[in-house]
Amino acid sequence: MHDYFKEVESLAGKLPPGKLQFIPLGGIGEIGKNMAAVVHGNDIIMIDSGLAFPEEDMPGIDIVLPDVTYLLENRDRVRGIFLTHGHEDHIGALPYLLRHLNVPVYGARLTMGMVELKLTEHQLSLHPSSRALEPGEVVKAGSFSVELFRVNHSIPDACGLIIKNPVGTVVHTGDFKFDHTPVDGRVADFHRLAEIGKEGVLLLLADSTNAERPGYTPSERTVGKTFDRVMEGAEGRVIVASFASQVHRVRQVVEAAVRHHRRVAVVGRSMENVVQKAIELGYLDFPPGTWMDIEEIKKLPANQIVIVTTGSQGEPMSALTRMSTSDHRKVTIVAGDTVIISATAIPGNEKYVARTIDNLYRLGAHVVYGAASHIHVSGHACQEELKLMHNLVRPKFFVPVHGEYRHLVHHAQIARDVGMDPSHVLIGENGAVFEFTRESGAIVGTVPSGRVLVDGVGVGDVGNIVLRDRKQLANDGILIVVVGMDAQSGLLVSGPDIVSRGFVYVRESEALLDEARQRVKSALATLEGNNLSEWSSIKSAVRETLGRFLWEKTKRRPMILPIIMEV
Amino acid sequence: MHDYFKEVESLAGKLPPGKLQFIPLGGIGEIGKNMAAVVHGNDIIMIDSGLAFPEEDMPGIDIVLPDVTYLLENRDRVRGIFLTHGHEDHIGALPYLLRHLNVPVYGARLTMGMVELKLTEHQLSLHPSSRALEPGEVVKAGSFSVELFRVNHSIPDACGLIIKNPVGTVVHTGDFKFDHTPVDGRVADFHRLAEIGKEGVLLLLADSTNAERPGYTPSERTVGKTFDRVMEGAEGRVIVASFASQVHRVRQVVEAAVRHHRRVAVVGRSMENVVQKAIELGYLDFPPGTWMDIEEIKKLPANQIVIVTTGSQGEPMSALTRMSTSDHRKVTIVAGDTVIISATAIPGNEKYVARTIDNLYRLGAHVVYGAASHIHVSGHACQEELKLMHNLVRPKFFVPVHGEYRHLVHHAQIARDVGMDPSHVLIGENGAVFEFTRESGAIVGTVPSGRVLVDGVGVGDVGNIVLRDRKQLANDGILIVVVGMDAQSGLLVSGPDIVSRGFVYVRESEALLDEARQRVKSALATLEGNNLSEWSSIKSAVRETLGRFLWEKTKRRPMILPIIMEV
Repeated sequence: MHDYFKEVESLAGKLPPGKLQFIPLGGIGEIGKNMAAVVHGNDIIMIDSGLAFPEEDMPGIDIVLPDVTYLLENRDRVRGIFLTHGHEDHIGALPYLLRHLNVPVYGARLTMGMVELKLTEHQLSLHPSSRALEPGEVVKAGSFSVELFRVNHSIPDACGLIIKNPVGTVVHTGDFKFDHTPVDGRVADFHRLAEIGKEGVLLLLADSTNAERPGYTPSERTVGKTFDRVMEGAEGRVIVASFASQVHRVRQVVEAAVRHHRRVAVVGRSMENVVQKAIELGYLDFPPGTWMDIEEIKKLPANQIVIVTTGSQGEPMSALTRMSTSDHRKVTIVAGDTVIISATAIPGNEKYVARTIDNLYRLGAHVVYGAASHIHVSGHACQEELKLMHNLVRPKFFVPVHGEYRHLVHHAQIARDVGMDPSHVLIGENGAVFEFTRESGAIVGTVPSGRVLVDGVGVGDVGNIVLRDRKQLANDGILIVVVGMDAQSGLLVSGPDIVSRGFVYVRESEALLDEARQRVKSALATLEGNNLSEWSSIKSAVRETLGRFLWEKTKRRPMILPIIMEV
Repeated sequence: MHDYFKEVESLAGKLPPGKLQFIPLGGIGEIGKNMAAVVHGNDIIMIDSGLAFPEEDMPGIDIVLPDVTYLLENRDRVRGIFLTHGHEDHIGALPYLLRHLNVPVYGARLTMGMVELKLTEHQLSLHPSSRALEPGEVVKAGSFSVELFRVNHSIPDACGLIIKNPVGTVVHTGDFKFDHTPVDGRVADFHRLAEIGKEGVLLLLADSTNAERPGYTPSERTVGKTFDRVMEGAEGRVIVASFASQVHRVRQVVEAAVRHHRRVAVVGRSMENVVQKAIELGYLDFPPGTWMDIEEIKKLPANQIVIVTTGSQGEPMSALTRMSTSDHRKVTIVAGDTVIISATAIPGNEKYVARTIDNLYRLGAHVVYGAASHIHVSGHACQEELKLMHNLVRPKFFVPVHGEYRHLVHHAQIARDVGMDPSHVLIGENGAVFEFTRESGAIVGTVPSGRVLVDGVGVGDVGNIVLRDRKQLANDGILIVVVGMDAQSGLLVSGPDIVSRGFVYVRESEALLDEARQRVKSALATLEGNNLSEWSSIKSAVRETLGRFLWEKTKRRPMILPIIMEV
């Protein structure tokens, strides 16, 4: 595996007393790869270590990691990584980071369980001092003392962080919402927030994902009511697709299944893994007689079957997508099946989800999806909840985090609306160095930040040049022009031969390619007499001639690759 | 230009008396490339001739056309093309179709104006019998007589079709909604619909785009109120991005600008063309002193300027997108500007629109966008409007058109909800042959249908093989392996040389490529003594060896292209 972290000149030494820095390395101005550093004196603690999924302009890329150059330059100062919850965009970069920076990792119990699942996959183990924390428990990390406080989110054990240090208390909400009737009965810790707000908070860092949305996010429980309604009315099997990590959603499916005398089968590798782990840690319970092996579905009447599976985003290889195209080994969709898509499409996935729904309808299934059908609620706080958070914590300074730029702008406005001094609301981007004293806050500089692309086992070996080539290849294909030249005379002795891929149907375009060959031939003729030292000029002649000709004829710009062989 | 239409055996001869066929060639099970044929006896008339925009799995493709093989086989029977309105997905295929099938084209005045714009671009002219029709005017086309009736939509002069013939009346709604307070005062022709419904309608073909959405689509006028509100509050320039064809939207911008003492500049080629044409045909009016040349924006105070432009979908080359990245020659976004994105993102464009909004905020602009801000209304009927259409027309048979499969399913349910005999509601897909008598209706067969891809000037020369290659090239790149072999001895005399593009950074992966070279070399050694006739086996040896090696090392599957030169 490549070592993609280049060691460069140190960017930050010991911080003078009375100063505190917050340095986001990901998750600001984007959704995903959440990671940040908090710096005091000679100590650095990290908040989360997440990955992002590739954008449409990153063909072939599997995942995207934050650039952690800054941390590796200051590796001796990093005292630990504190995780807010177990989602990929908060823990997914750990397997890559820990190879280079093996420091203690802390998080709530299920969060650490998810980390364990992930590290086992990568055959890695945690630093021995790593451990699961109970909310309220305080961990010392250099001059920091850090405490988790419970919030609500779309995965159990989601927490925010209270980070005490000599300059002033920092509160990081993590991803959160306020659910007054949570499925596990564990409401966000309003009391601790009120208490800490009363003591005085220097800096609030809060989730901005839903800052555009007015009102409140409904309780997760409302989804359970929908499951009841659907199972009540369904004559056949009920198939529920959701995110594997949505343990509370799965729990509500199981509870509804029990009420409607159905048994539950779990399908899809990631769903099976998470469900197993959640059961093992006591976050999920299948009452006796509820669990069903997928092999048994043929033995039971359809109206006694519920299947929980993955694929709510229409991911090509997921279980539900395969079912929708009749490609799944275990489950065949038939008329009478009811499929619940218990999620909303993540931006960029809308078309995949729509295609899956269309295909399920083509197979005769009834499909329950979309906002109007109340089969999903967001895991993030809307505007009224954000206002409540601000009013509980009452920070001196505020930096909106976790959101694309427009979300940060809206969240900043909310902070001003609840009465914050506008000059104390700071919007920055990844890599910005936010520096605070007890009285002041400002962006004072930047550290390296950006995206590191993972393709297969390669980390960072695909960069802008490779991506640019991939895009050109994707749009117009490639032409390879092979010519044999005599080294001495510089005469063309064989070729030019042209091979193309992704450009045109060769069969239907022979005339075009023949003419292309002629153009190259005559271009080379004018160059004859060149010797080896000038092959570069031969190559550029081939590129120019062919490029101009093909643009004229086809209005396409395929990549042109001249290969000259000395014969 | 390629002739992509392959002449094959005729699929349909003269229809026996008493039979009528409806054959959709596009727009069913998809949004876009709307085109259909109605067949009676020896006569065929066409409804619309639209294009679609490429899906994310069609790299490099510019536009998508319906397969019109069926029409060309029956070219002598085609009596004319009737257009419902001037949107690309209803007229965009005309320039390609008319080259092969030059028949009369009919449509309302603005529709024909849009066609004219399009054909001029392509240096084509219409069949002499083509002409603009007034709603209510009847055109004879073989045994058909066709009449336009006014509906409301997001472009002026949108119409539906009443198609009379000996078997029974067919009503096609086109894209429609019911707007009781339209900007141009022209409400849909309820009276004609009621009248024709009373006379008796055999078949209704109706727009399904919004069949998922309950209630009514709001009136276009509601958007005008928002323009007033925003211009009222804006201290600087107001920039409105919308679709060029949204003439009523532009009209409301101009009207609001007049009320707030602002002048209006039009920016973006397509917007300029459509606005000119709309003014010329009397569908749009700039009162004296309202029109402003974009060059003048520096001379006027910011609070007296409105700019109407394109780019509401975040299209990379559009005016607004260029402004958002400070790449526009004429307009530089500054703090204090207010940008209104007066559209919703077409599925697949969400991320581009979001990026544009983020970039506008980064430049300090205030951005008005999204459902909550009421700066856009749909052009399509929601469920209550669809029910009204069904109850006015009271057809014997119904085929939902214009929508992805789930939209058709919802629309079919609506038809049953208003009381239609379920066996008279027929859902099909592109290419299905719907056949009707006065008493019966069924799908009786299929004709060729599908997508013809346009890339540059090439029409149909990019097919599945080329697309598959483009996708592989995009995901993992390509390796070209060049070897020189002695024709006689079959011995390797030069190479193997490996050139790669879109695979890895060559600089950082020299070791990998060196080892690859060695692997190929030894694989070839085992094959030595082969003669020319077995080069194929040499090529497959190279592919296998290298493929396996690279998968092991990188978990990537680049295209591998062995090139053997006889030396």
